[in-house]
Amino acid sequence: MSFNIITDQILDSIRHIIGDEFVLTGKPEIERYSRDETSGLVFYPEVVVKPCAAVEIAELLKLCNRHLIPITPRGGGTGLSGGALPVMGGLLLSMERFNKIVDIDTANLQATVEAGVITQVLIDACADKGLYYPIDPSSKGSSMIGGNIAHCSGGPRVVKYGGIREYVLNLEMVLPSGKIIWTGANTLKYSSGYNLTQLMIGAEGTLGIITKAVLRLIPLPAFNVLMWASFTCSEDACAAVSAIFRAGVTPSALEFIERPAVELVLQYSSVSFTLHDAAQAFLLIEVDGADMDVILKDADKINNVLESFNCTDVLFADTAAQKEGLWRIRRSINPAIKAGNPVYKKEDTVVPRALLPQLLKGVKHIGHKYGFDSICFGHAGDGNMHVNIIKAGMSDHDWEHKLDDGITEIFKLTVALGGTISGEHGIGLVQKEFMPVKYRPVHFELWQGIKKAFDPNGILNPGKIF
Amino acid sequence: MSFNIITDQILDSIRHIIGDEFVLTGKPEIERYSRDETSGLVFYPEVVVKPCAAVEIAELLKLCNRHLIPITPRGGGTGLSGGALPVMGGLLLSMERFNKIVDIDTANLQATVEAGVITQVLIDACADKGLYYPIDPSSKGSSMIGGNIAHCSGGPRVVKYGGIREYVLNLEMVLPSGKIIWTGANTLKYSSGYNLTQLMIGAEGTLGIITKAVLRLIPLPAFNVLMWASFTCSEDACAAVSAIFRAGVTPSALEFIERPAVELVLQYSSVSFTLHDAAQAFLLIEVDGADMDVILKDADKINNVLESFNCTDVLFADTAAQKEGLWRIRRSINPAIKAGNPVYKKEDTVVPRALLPQLLKGVKHIGHKYGFDSICFGHAGDGNMHVNIIKAGMSDHDWEHKLDDGITEIFKLTVALGGTISGEHGIGLVQKEFMPVKYRPVHFELWQGIKKAFDPNGILNPGKIF
Repeated sequence: MSFNIITDQILDSIRHIIGDEFVLTGKPEIERYSRDETSGLVFYPEVVVKPCAAVEIAELLKLCNRHLIPITPRGGGTGLSGGALPVMGGLLLSMERFNKIVDIDTANLQATVEAGVITQVLIDACADKGLYYPIDPSSKGSSMIGGNIAHCSGGPRVVKYGGIREYVLNLEMVLPSGKIIWTGANTLKYSSGYNLTQLMIGAEGTLGIITKAVLRLIPLPAFNVLMWASFTCSEDACAAVSAIFRAGVTPSALEFIERPAVELVLQYSSVSFTLHDAAQAFLLIEVDGADMDVILKDADKINNVLESFNCTDVLFADTAAQKEGLWRIRRSINPAIKAGNPVYKKEDTVVPRALLPQLLKGVKHIGHKYGFDSICFGHAGDGNMHVNIIKAGMSDHDWEHKLDDGITEIFKLTVALGGTISGEHGIGLVQKEFMPVKYRPVHFELWQGIKKAFDPNGILNPGKIF
Repeated sequence: MSFNIITDQILDSIRHIIGDEFVLTGKPEIERYSRDETSGLVFYPEVVVKPCAAVEIAELLKLCNRHLIPITPRGGGTGLSGGALPVMGGLLLSMERFNKIVDIDTANLQATVEAGVITQVLIDACADKGLYYPIDPSSKGSSMIGGNIAHCSGGPRVVKYGGIREYVLNLEMVLPSGKIIWTGANTLKYSSGYNLTQLMIGAEGTLGIITKAVLRLIPLPAFNVLMWASFTCSEDACAAVSAIFRAGVTPSALEFIERPAVELVLQYSSVSFTLHDAAQAFLLIEVDGADMDVILKDADKINNVLESFNCTDVLFADTAAQKEGLWRIRRSINPAIKAGNPVYKKEDTVVPRALLPQLLKGVKHIGHKYGFDSICFGHAGDGNMHVNIIKAGMSDHDWEHKLDDGITEIFKLTVALGGTISGEHGIGLVQKEFMPVKYRPVHFELWQGIKKAFDPNGILNPGKIF
């Protein structure tokens, strides 16, 4: 794919479309758009634009399509796979001004939001009306709905409430041709042609620019219980995960955390927590619902399972503050790993949940072989393990030249277990090279065919996924 | 699209691929493959084949792709939109021999099944292991999993448990090139490139032949309560539907039924039921879960809502036999309408659920204008209303020449309410002409582009969807 640079003339056209003040070109002011939360990557766009309407994006896309200028859409910039990085330069399309909650429809339990609404802002607005939008990735304080949709983002509540796929009913999107369409209908069921809404979820901005979403909401659960279970053996903790479901309980969160993750949190955040010497791994387990008696019964069943997997200690959070404290540990892991490790890589493996112990064991084995450490944590209830690879004793040379072999081995194991390369972070830039571990040329041909149908000139987020 | 007929030479090749006994050509033996459950349509294929392995289908597809022979896949033949009808002749691919449940994995709560497994057979096999596969369309006794997936089939439990999209994790499929691929991974989360699994759901066999599916299962709910609520006013019954959710209850089924549907069932089936004179519409409401106390509390909340919408009577099914009796009424509606009405058409409208009263009112108004009767029933909890158009007083001429205008008006209303043309039956042959009511040329271009990526010669189920 060969692109053109943005000439002064094209820049004038861009300014004409959305107004001078929303077009940034100076290096200092576009600096923050050159990074996301992916470790160690910086790519400067030529121009940053901040449109506020689908019709503006339509004009921008037509212009870029005519002149073969790459366009990279950006939500909150919290991505962990480099999806929002303008790796080919060109135009960076910041969705930050698409920040309106258009409607929360309490009769139909639906919300209509612009793509740049911050996830937590929507969650809070729904809660004010007694409703629940349960897709809450750790980055929810700054991630945006459009980015969540583009990356098929998850979070801890997917295990009970389902993924973002189950909450996105309809999308307004802009195509490179400048056409603005709704992908589907505002309905809970849909069997009317190829499902473009579902296709857009996880497409990482390569097929169209999402400008608005109609989302399904559910009643806000009235009560919850939060438990913090300690284990002296990480594999025991992993093995307990699938046993909880087999006991007939579906927790509203079931997170696995290795000790080093908590140590980093204690070191690099203001969270305080007493870490017992013997504890090597933890499960953070939430049960929620409309009835406290049922929740306590479920918690009891979970407790029994935990005991049979050599859990040494279960802490029940008594107050809202204690609950928030435990959740803050979980949400602080990513920033703490970043703070404590100048050089690391983050993988987002996912396997059938009963195979988590094999995955964990294999990851440690591979780390041993290549000389890297790993800090593992994640949404164990979904079989989704975030493997954070820490340089540790690896030489610079090995990190540079051998790490990819190690990552390939991790992904080979993941695939052998029935899993895949990313559960919720997306492929973006950094996982692209590993896609052939899982996928065959025929998959790439199908994806490229789909891409061509939407974006024949390949201007939308080029260099991502494949 | 111009296809070729199956010559003797091609027929020899087909026989060579799958064996003489699984190739049918005589009119009497292929007669049953010329129809599905869509009213009034008959299309004969040239040849019916019954392969039993993906590799056989791969060879058949390569052969047909080379010779431009249309292929129509067929599951249980229970479709209501003509999706399994070989409208261009050619090869009819019956999946009836793909009838093995490969595995029910109780550790991971997953089942792997061949595409021709009967829905009820899978549900029963899961229940034997304490697990639940909640996608149970009325046709579950004879519909097949592959057909359910191809049509994005639903059923009464979608309202609580989500649609088939939320249960299909991974699909084995055969492409026209003869390549056999798995679309994704056996995982609960997936963010690894365009989601081919989701794209296949609802694609009606036009993109590839589904041969195997990995399905998510959940714990079997221990208890349920079933209520039959009577109303003197149909719109009141519809209005109560969204109010139940607003009261914080999510029933495991919430079906709306108009009186004439029940009358037909009593006339044309062996079900017995006392129908009170004043009752004009009914809600069949199920609440399920792990705890009977909670279910009864929810049932109580529902009762309160029903009262405030002028419900005249609520019957609680006391025994398993009573429950089955009420469900049989619901499941017998389609056959009873068919038995009682030689000429009718079935629509599958879906709107946001709080707008059901407007939809119902509009349908009756349109019927009055064009002279047809309508019997409405369906999955009201999802906003999914099956509108059965009965010829009634309409002249043959009007039925032939004016009915489409009436149906167009119904769909225009559906779309104006934020809905679409089909919630769970698919577009197939019979709804194809109405797609422009909802979709613009740009949608068709995108769909055609997707189609081209999978099936460049257009041999898979031609004449369907668009």
